[in-house]
Amino acid sequence: MTEITGRTRVFAILADPIAQVKAPQGLNRLMAERGVDGVMVPLHVAAADLPTVVAGLRATQSFGGAIVTVPHKTAIVPLLDAVSDAARLVGAVNAVRREPDGRLVGEILDGAGFVAGLRAAGHDPRGASAYLAGAGGAANAIAFALAEAGVGRLTVHNRTPARVEDLFARLRRLHPALPLASAADPAGHDLVVNATSLGLRPDDPLPLDPAGLAAGQLVAEIIMQPAKTPLLAAAAARGCRTHPGLPMLEGQLALMADFLRMRP
Amino acid sequence: MTEITGRTRVFAILADPIAQVKAPQGLNRLMAERGVDGVMVPLHVAAADLPTVVAGLRATQSFGGAIVTVPHKTAIVPLLDAVSDAARLVGAVNAVRREPDGRLVGEILDGAGFVAGLRAAGHDPRGASAYLAGAGGAANAIAFALAEAGVGRLTVHNRTPARVEDLFARLRRLHPALPLASAADPAGHDLVVNATSLGLRPDDPLPLDPAGLAAGQLVAEIIMQPAKTPLLAAAAARGCRTHPGLPMLEGQLALMADFLRMRP
Repeated sequence: MTEITGRTRVFAILADPIAQVKAPQGLNRLMAERGVDGVMVPLHVAAADLPTVVAGLRATQSFGGAIVTVPHKTAIVPLLDAVSDAARLVGAVNAVRREPDGRLVGEILDGAGFVAGLRAAGHDPRGASAYLAGAGGAANAIAFALAEAGVGRLTVHNRTPARVEDLFARLRRLHPALPLASAADPAGHDLVVNATSLGLRPDDPLPLDPAGLAAGQLVAEIIMQPAKTPLLAAAAARGCRTHPGLPMLEGQLALMADFLRMRP
Repeated sequence: MTEITGRTRVFAILADPIAQVKAPQGLNRLMAERGVDGVMVPLHVAAADLPTVVAGLRATQSFGGAIVTVPHKTAIVPLLDAVSDAARLVGAVNAVRREPDGRLVGEILDGAGFVAGLRAAGHDPRGASAYLAGAGGAANAIAFALAEAGVGRLTVHNRTPARVEDLFARLRRLHPALPLASAADPAGHDLVVNATSLGLRPDDPLPLDPAGLAAGQLVAEIIMQPAKTPLLAAAAARGCRTHPGLPMLEGQLALMADFLRMRP
């Protein structure tokens, strides 16, 4: 990293918990490679404090923007001045840019990053039958990106069926021909994705019943730390191929840097 | 600097303008030498936005504290939960520590740093006749530190005489025997100090009339950028020794790091 001076632009990642985030390492390395005078730092912000912290960042003229992750992706939307059409439909953002006049603009890059990470590992989701655990911010983004990438059908599982129906209603607006189902069992799907935060803490339950996993399936995570979640361990034990969470971040680092205008 | 991760503590300097600040370079170097997992970044904050930004920093659990400089040193005092006795008497702080429970505690280190910088350059102020331009936050801190260091008499100049009288009333509480005078002319003083922000911008007027400067005097600045202010240039042209602003920061880097608990 180049030396931080009074002219350095400051970027942040907003998260709770914070210790496991990887965006500072990735984006600081990318800025160094690009010759950008900027630095990304970790801001540990509890859910209840998000409006206060966002107000402070909006008022900080050297603040260039933030990556936003659990638990803030949906809660931050009404605090912003504008969001992209994709972010509005998904109902979440994971990147916020501060314009020179202080306006905060949000974008969702999770889904595109997840698909880019799958493709970089040799897994094209086109035509696949896909199963998604979760209906939160990241799950919404991945559902839209998988539909955009041309999956053949999509099953979504969430403890609260109303959240699945709400996601489906929005998906149908953009992808009316895509077959959608709400079901708990991942059996019979080519691609199984955990898009919940279950697995982040050691005592979390599994996000889905591993009895429905079998050889031939690809099981993918969005959790980056630990790299081998209990779900991926269970999937590997049942003969599945696995895809960890880190490629989703790697797949969107360049997308994030461009959106945040990390330019020399 | 060591790599920034999700575990790195974040420190800031709050200023307007911001480009000239030197604390990030000095304290990031010091943290690297001490093996501290922390980073200091520049936050450009206008005076009107200070309460909003301070509220945001208070709510950020990975925020360790801030260096505070022009124009925030006095304005930030009522925004804090506690200040040291010295800071309360001076009416300004230049360092704020965030305690783990979110309480913000302020301290003033400018004066001690200024005197440490003078001594490191071989100039002991003990017994000297001293002239101080300014009666703001930094000037107050330096006045108390010069009194503590044992100057023989102290003259203060400010466009608003009431601010000088107010400073004197507080100085007399701690140093009742020190001769004090309010006067514009720096002539006849061993040590002449600019403790205003005049000289920060190219079109600023001089903080004092250079006709009162002559060989034998030491003329000192608190402005760090530019290193050679118009006042120092005028002083050198009249045969004075000069002392730039940077040693005041260097003199207090270790004091700042200790106060901000920059420890491995």
